[in-house]
Amino acid sequence: MADRRILDLPAVVLRERLASGAMRAIELTEAVIARVDCLGTASTGFTWFDPGFARRQAASLDQFRGRGRALGALHGLVVAVDDTIDTAWIPTGRGFAPFDGHVPEKESAIVEQLRSAGAMVAGKTRVAELGVGGFRGDGQNGGGSAATRDGAAAAVANGVVPLAVGLDGGSSLVAAAASAGVTGYRPSFGAISRRGTLDLVPSLTAPCVFAPDVAGVALIAEALFGFDAADPATTLAPHPRLLEHAGSPPPVTPTLAFVRTPWWDCASAEMQEAFDELIAALGERCFEAPLPQIFADARILAERVMLAEMAKNLTGIRQRHAAALSQALSERLSEGDAVLARDYLAALDWRKVLYAGIETIFERCDAIVTPAAIGPARDGQATQDATAFNALWTFLGVPSVTLPLLETPDGLPMGVQLVGRRGEDARLLRTAQWLQTLFQQEMQG
Amino acid sequence: MADRRILDLPAVVLRERLASGAMRAIELTEAVIARVDCLGTASTGFTWFDPGFARRQAASLDQFRGRGRALGALHGLVVAVDDTIDTAWIPTGRGFAPFDGHVPEKESAIVEQLRSAGAMVAGKTRVAELGVGGFRGDGQNGGGSAATRDGAAAAVANGVVPLAVGLDGGSSLVAAAASAGVTGYRPSFGAISRRGTLDLVPSLTAPCVFAPDVAGVALIAEALFGFDAADPATTLAPHPRLLEHAGSPPPVTPTLAFVRTPWWDCASAEMQEAFDELIAALGERCFEAPLPQIFADARILAERVMLAEMAKNLTGIRQRHAAALSQALSERLSEGDAVLARDYLAALDWRKVLYAGIETIFERCDAIVTPAAIGPARDGQATQDATAFNALWTFLGVPSVTLPLLETPDGLPMGVQLVGRRGEDARLLRTAQWLQTLFQQEMQG
Repeated sequence: MADRRILDLPAVVLRERLASGAMRAIELTEAVIARVDCLGTASTGFTWFDPGFARRQAASLDQFRGRGRALGALHGLVVAVDDTIDTAWIPTGRGFAPFDGHVPEKESAIVEQLRSAGAMVAGKTRVAELGVGGFRGDGQNGGGSAATRDGAAAAVANGVVPLAVGLDGGSSLVAAAASAGVTGYRPSFGAISRRGTLDLVPSLTAPCVFAPDVAGVALIAEALFGFDAADPATTLAPHPRLLEHAGSPPPVTPTLAFVRTPWWDCASAEMQEAFDELIAALGERCFEAPLPQIFADARILAERVMLAEMAKNLTGIRQRHAAALSQALSERLSEGDAVLARDYLAALDWRKVLYAGIETIFERCDAIVTPAAIGPARDGQATQDATAFNALWTFLGVPSVTLPLLETPDGLPMGVQLVGRRGEDARLLRTAQWLQTLFQQEMQG
Repeated sequence: MADRRILDLPAVVLRERLASGAMRAIELTEAVIARVDCLGTASTGFTWFDPGFARRQAASLDQFRGRGRALGALHGLVVAVDDTIDTAWIPTGRGFAPFDGHVPEKESAIVEQLRSAGAMVAGKTRVAELGVGGFRGDGQNGGGSAATRDGAAAAVANGVVPLAVGLDGGSSLVAAAASAGVTGYRPSFGAISRRGTLDLVPSLTAPCVFAPDVAGVALIAEALFGFDAADPATTLAPHPRLLEHAGSPPPVTPTLAFVRTPWWDCASAEMQEAFDELIAALGERCFEAPLPQIFADARILAERVMLAEMAKNLTGIRQRHAAALSQALSERLSEGDAVLARDYLAALDWRKVLYAGIETIFERCDAIVTPAAIGPARDGQATQDATAFNALWTFLGVPSVTLPLLETPDGLPMGVQLVGRRGEDARLLRTAQWLQTLFQQEMQG
């Protein structure tokens, strides 16, 4: 019988046990299978899961280990991958009925990296329509319920897998993570290759990772980082040792810049109150940095880029499968059709201006601290403002970590978002680890 | 008194004499001044020329040499730079009345490179309206008369300077060069930094160089090549030794692919006849390669990208100086305003497809050979097709060299264009040098 308690262990501890031989991959796999059985596949966040396939992979990994060969950084770990990321010979339905049962022949770069690190892909997780539906609230699938809509974070939150990867074009994924009670990490734009993914918004899309804690997201992200000639957003750069950095103590106590953003009024009262308490508790370790009024346009600019690129990249799908598109997405694509090239190009130019504005804040802090979402995930609270606290950072391509550190009076998790300089992912994770530890020690007793 | 005959010497010979001390910079400068005096500034291609400034630069360069210091690759050479390229403390009028007398405070990257190689900027040359007017024929300033409109090639053709640099967003510059009887070279997109230029079409614009012969364009281009963080089109790559390559004999006899292009019917009868003779004379060294029908759209796609980027980048100028814009340019900007983002993005995608199509030709040849322009430069023959033989190559970002090898029955020069693989500039120049030599030896001797 499977020992279900091992799924409560952090990913880095599982990794140690698997590497040392204290645990076999098949043990972890049986625990995952038992958990899926217990919850029922529909509640796990999975759209596809095959116990037999998982057992065969685990057996093969254990056999590999038995031969005494060098092990990858994720050897034996079970990872969920969302359904916009291609998996060879495993259905990749992209959240769109006409693609049901579509089976790619090639792995995505993400899955290649996971496999070469020794991880096993246990299942595919649910995504919004074509991975982009519901970016703005559409009644049924707004950001407020993204935690249940996007399965990658949910699979971690439900204790089914210790690690998950999702593709984020529309900024809602990391917001959803914290609301689901897990840690979400959106690396710097271009840090992880998007080859073999349904990338409809190439100027904004970044793969995101989910784990119960900061060390977990650092562990899996480190395995995914890297240059890929097939994704022009990636660059040749030294491979950062994210896990080691995240775990090392900051040389001096970090300073955080609290940024309310122009969208502070979109935040629910419980988020605002919890945040005010957080900032008060941080005391001298945090100062408030106002954003110039110019930033108020950032959401409109991000939306413009997103809609235009979606409209263009979905041309073929719209011709073949128009009837299958939801009305909400069809309407947004029509908006995208109407975006003028000059406005699109001007929006990309503004991005540079806004980034320069943010730089002046980064010069005085280790990270920006801001809400991860407008409030907790409650059903029926979808709104156009769901991604208010994410669109700017997505637009700028800066890394962000969302931590489920806050709580509503009735016990729903709410997220704190830390944002770093582009390319300074290791430092951001170290600051996030520091805040997570501080919170556990000081604020909760 | 200045010896005017030295201006008939090729740039590489001048360079040798200047480096060895057989000629002083002031001698070359006096010859240039005498030539300008003789022609009258208006006929030289210059919009700005200051004999006193030229003499002071020359004296300073001779003094530098006198101290026995290491000399730059262009030490003492006189170069003309077109008026869309910023020159510190020298008027840069950009072919637009509201900028008359505008004096930049910073050098462009091009002028920085020229100066650090020891060249002197003798004058600024005439450009079309904002460097882009008259891309399509506008009655007065069509491509047919680009040779007289764009001053950079004209300054070389008139024997005023041995070398010139111009900025080419609209594909007409290298066409004009050959029609003016000089050699023009448009390097691979991104080979030369555009920092400090009036770059209105960043997806297409490339600086071009002009000289009487292939060695001359190789000499100056080599000094201009290089990475510049301020121009995202440039990349870190080993510096190619263009001059050495251009002068070395090809390891085996080159093979050329004759490409009529879908625009062959735009070529004048005299160009078509001269070209047929050329191809016949090349015999086995040349095969004809048809372009698939898909390429017929390339001009429309290039135009779409160009108009959209111009419309966006001229926003400020249109707000402040609408009345100063020509009607022709205003109309084209209105066309650019209407380009949809999705069509713009789709055009950039098509570029990749077309490049892949061209690659299959490059696998079988050293260079593509095709007309440099639709015909010789005759006044009053402006047409919308003026750049028919250039737009595709500009769009693809491939390097091209135009050689004034052909002639009309009444003695007007016509250009042969050689096109190479992106990044294989050295090989293209070597092939161009081979063809130029072959032509001198076999066909005219």
